[in-house]
Amino acid sequence: MRNLTMMTDLYELTMMNGYLRHGMKDSRACFDVFYRKQGDITSYAIAAGLEQAVDYITNLHFGEEDIAYLRSLKIFDEAFLDYLASFRFTGDIAAVPEGTVIFPDEPIMRVTAPIMEAQLLETALLNILGHQTLIATKASRIIQAARGDRVLEFGLRRAQGPDAGIYGARAAIIGGFQATSNVLTGQMFDVPVGGTHAHSWVMSFPDELTAFRAYADVFPNQCLLLVDTYDTLGSGVPNAITVFNELRARGIEPMGIRLDSGDLAFLSRQARRMLDEAGFPNAKIFASGDIDEEIIWDLKAQGAAIDVWGIGTKLITSMDNPCLGAVYKLAAQEMNGVFEPRIKISENPAKVTNPGIKQVLRYYDRRTGKALADLIALADENLSGGEPIEIFDPEHTWKRMTLCDYEARSLLVPIFEKGELVYDLPTLHDIAEYQKRDLDTFWDEYKRLHSPHRYKVDLSEGLYTLKSRLLGQRKA
Amino acid sequence: MRNLTMMTDLYELTMMNGYLRHGMKDSRACFDVFYRKQGDITSYAIAAGLEQAVDYITNLHFGEEDIAYLRSLKIFDEAFLDYLASFRFTGDIAAVPEGTVIFPDEPIMRVTAPIMEAQLLETALLNILGHQTLIATKASRIIQAARGDRVLEFGLRRAQGPDAGIYGARAAIIGGFQATSNVLTGQMFDVPVGGTHAHSWVMSFPDELTAFRAYADVFPNQCLLLVDTYDTLGSGVPNAITVFNELRARGIEPMGIRLDSGDLAFLSRQARRMLDEAGFPNAKIFASGDIDEEIIWDLKAQGAAIDVWGIGTKLITSMDNPCLGAVYKLAAQEMNGVFEPRIKISENPAKVTNPGIKQVLRYYDRRTGKALADLIALADENLSGGEPIEIFDPEHTWKRMTLCDYEARSLLVPIFEKGELVYDLPTLHDIAEYQKRDLDTFWDEYKRLHSPHRYKVDLSEGLYTLKSRLLGQRKA
Repeated sequence: MRNLTMMTDLYELTMMNGYLRHGMKDSRACFDVFYRKQGDITSYAIAAGLEQAVDYITNLHFGEEDIAYLRSLKIFDEAFLDYLASFRFTGDIAAVPEGTVIFPDEPIMRVTAPIMEAQLLETALLNILGHQTLIATKASRIIQAARGDRVLEFGLRRAQGPDAGIYGARAAIIGGFQATSNVLTGQMFDVPVGGTHAHSWVMSFPDELTAFRAYADVFPNQCLLLVDTYDTLGSGVPNAITVFNELRARGIEPMGIRLDSGDLAFLSRQARRMLDEAGFPNAKIFASGDIDEEIIWDLKAQGAAIDVWGIGTKLITSMDNPCLGAVYKLAAQEMNGVFEPRIKISENPAKVTNPGIKQVLRYYDRRTGKALADLIALADENLSGGEPIEIFDPEHTWKRMTLCDYEARSLLVPIFEKGELVYDLPTLHDIAEYQKRDLDTFWDEYKRLHSPHRYKVDLSEGLYTLKSRLLGQRKA
Repeated sequence: MRNLTMMTDLYELTMMNGYLRHGMKDSRACFDVFYRKQGDITSYAIAAGLEQAVDYITNLHFGEEDIAYLRSLKIFDEAFLDYLASFRFTGDIAAVPEGTVIFPDEPIMRVTAPIMEAQLLETALLNILGHQTLIATKASRIIQAARGDRVLEFGLRRAQGPDAGIYGARAAIIGGFQATSNVLTGQMFDVPVGGTHAHSWVMSFPDELTAFRAYADVFPNQCLLLVDTYDTLGSGVPNAITVFNELRARGIEPMGIRLDSGDLAFLSRQARRMLDEAGFPNAKIFASGDIDEEIIWDLKAQGAAIDVWGIGTKLITSMDNPCLGAVYKLAAQEMNGVFEPRIKISENPAKVTNPGIKQVLRYYDRRTGKALADLIALADENLSGGEPIEIFDPEHTWKRMTLCDYEARSLLVPIFEKGELVYDLPTLHDIAEYQKRDLDTFWDEYKRLHSPHRYKVDLSEGLYTLKSRLLGQRKA
C-alpha cells in the first residue's frame, strides 16, 4: 500500500505546528467535505473515492526520512516533529457510501478530530474524493445518454497521470460503465476488461484483409475488427465481412466492427446496412473517438446505428469540467468541551458555509419509493420521526412544501470511530449495483442532460436559524 | 519504485499475443510519440515526463500474480504468458530532453524495438508524457503572462488523483514555476515548497487579530497573512498591519498578505495603498483563487498590485484544455532486415501520419542565436552540414525560405540502446534551468498568449517526397 502521508500542502503542516505551539493539540474540530454548484453543468453527482480515502487514512504515518526532510526545511519546531513521528489518526469520520447520489453543498464526509489531525487530511481527501466523484459523475451522465447501450472506458492513455487512469476507470465503473480497457484497474478491482486491436495491427500486415484474418485466427471468439485504418466503407467493412464469412464457415459468429473516426452517424448506418445485407444482423457496431454524452445524444438523434460506446478522453479528464471543486471547511470547534459552530463568511453568498455539526437527510415518498427532497440539518435535530415536516428554500423562504408520507434516510454513515475503521468496504461490483439502485430512486426529470429539474436540497429550520444568527453576528 | 507494467490497455496485450502467434516476435517496428495541433490553444509545448517514462521502462516486468490474472481472463495463449514471464524491454528509444520547446507533429519520442515490446509501451508512455507535457506547457503560458513575477503551484487538492498532483507539480516546475505547496513533490524532487495558512486557521481563533498574532508568533520570519476570511479591507488588511507593526517592534520585517477571493484588481490596489501608507512598501501581496494566464493578463492590464501568484485548479487540471492528445503511431516496420515506412491514412489530412524513421532538426540563426525553423526529416538525411537549405510549407509548398548562416541541432537524443539506459537523467532543477534557456531561443512573437506568430515546422524534402509517394499508393 502506498503511503501518501507527505502528499499534503505545506500550510497544513505549518498550521499544525502553530496549533501545537498554541496548546491546541487536543482541541477538536469538525470539518465538512462538500462541492459547490458549478454553473449548470451537474444536476447531481455520484460520490466516489471513499475506499482510497480510507486506505490513505489507515496508512497515515511519517517515516524517519519524512521527518528528516521536514526538519531540513528549517521552519518546524522539534516538538512538532516529535509529534509527527508518532502521528496516527484518532478521530471520527462519517461519509456517504460510494455510489450515492449527492448534490452541491451536502457534506459528503464529516471529519471530527483533534484539529491538527483533521487539518492534515484536508488536501489528500479533497484530491481523492474530488477526482473520483468527478469522473463517476461524468460517467453517469454518459450512461444516461447511452440509454441502456453498453459503454466501455478507454481513457487510460489520455488520463492526467497513472492514478487518474487507474482510479478514473474505477470511478467510471461506479458511474455505470460496464468494462474498462485498463488491465491494472481490472486486476485491482476485479472488473471486466475489454478491447481488441489498434490501427497499428492493421498497418503491420501487408494489407487490411491479411491483418483481419490474422486477428480472427488468434481471437476467433472475440472477433471485433477496427475498420477505419484505410477506407471504412470502401475496404474496412467489406474486408470484415469477408473474414466474418470465413469465421462462420468454421461455425463461429463474429463479435462486430469498431469505428474510430469519421462521420459516425453516416458510417454506422451504412456499415449496419452492409452487415445486415451480408447476413450479420447480430454483429455489433462499436464506436470510439472523442465521444461524450452530448455526442451520444446527438448521434442517437441522427439515428446512428451504434451498439457499444468506447469513451476515452472526454470521460477520463471530464473534459468539459475537469474539476469538481470540492472544499473542506471548518464547521465546528470544541471550546471547553462543547462544540461551537463556525461559519466562513464571503462576499459571495454561495460561498458562505453552513455552520455546525451536520447530517444530511433524504426523504422518500412511501408510495413511489422516489426521493422527494434532501435536508441539510444539524446532527442533533430529530427530523426522521415521521411527523409532517415543512421544508423551505433557503434563498426564497416563501417557497415551502410539507413532507408527509415519507421515509427518511441519513446519508452519512460511520467510517472511522476513535481512529478505528468501523465500515465494511464493499466491493466495486457492489458499489456499482448500489449506485444503479440509488439513481433509480430519482425521477428522470432530475437526471436528464439538458435543463434538469432542480432537486430540492434545503436547510433544516434549526440550521437555517443558526446560520442566520451567525451571519447577523459576523465578526472580524 | 512502483511497477506500472499492468497499466496498459487490454488491446496491447491481445495484439502482442497475435504477433507472437504469427511469428512476428522478433519483427522490429518504429513508433513515434507526438501531439497534434489543437485549435489555437497552444503555440508551443514544453516536453516533460521523460524521467517517469524511463522509470516505467526500467521497471517493466510481469509478476506471478500478473500472469495468473491474465491467465484467468481465458483469452491468452500459454506460450504468450510464458513470453510475458521473462519480458523486458530490449529496444532503442530516443527522445527530446525534458524542458525542450516542442511543436505539433514533431516526434518527441521514438521507440524502435520488437513490435511486441513497442506495442506494450504505448498506453503508459502516452499517459505519462502526455500528462506532464500538458501541465508544463500550461505552466509556461502562465509564466509568460506573469512577466517575471514569482509564481507558485497550489493545485494538489484539485488535481485528478495523487499522481496528477505529484507529477503535475513537477511539470509546473519544469514549465517555470518557482515553488509548490505539495510537500511530497518537494521531497521527491528537491524543489522549494511554500504556503502559510488557510481560512480555517483564522476561524479557529476567537478573532482574526488573535489568529494573525498567533501565526506571527510561530512563524515570525514567514509572516504571510491571509486577509480575506471576514472582510479584506475592513478587517483583514488593518489587522495584518497591526501585527506587522508588532513584528517590526521585534526587529522582524513581515513577508506580506494573501488575497484569495473578491475583486483582485481593486482589493490589491487598495491593500497596496494601505500597506504603503502604514510603512510596509516591501510587504508583498500574494494572490490566489481560480487564476490562470488570462486572468493574470487581465489583472495586470488593470494595474493590479500583485507580486506573487498562487495557481491551483486551472494549472493542475489544465482546465481550458485538459488533454494534450498525444498519440503513438507506427512509422516503420522491419521486413527481411530492412525498415519499410508505414503511413496511417485518414479522411482528415491533419491526421495522416509522417512515415519512416525520423529525426527532428532545429535551425538557429548564428548571428542572434534564435531559432529559425524546425524540420521533421528522415533519420538518414544529412541536413545539418551547413550548406544552404531551402525549406517549404508542407501544405502550401510555394511558401519557401532558404536557411543559410545556421547552426542545426538534433532534438532527439538516445535514451535506451538495446534495452540499456544510456542517458544521464538530469535533476529537476537542471531541467528547469535548461527549459528557460531553450525558451529564450524563441522570439517573443512565437510565445505570446494571443495570436502568436506561427513557428515553422516543415517536412524535409526527403520526408515530403516519401509521404507523397505513399499517399499516392494508398492501399486497402
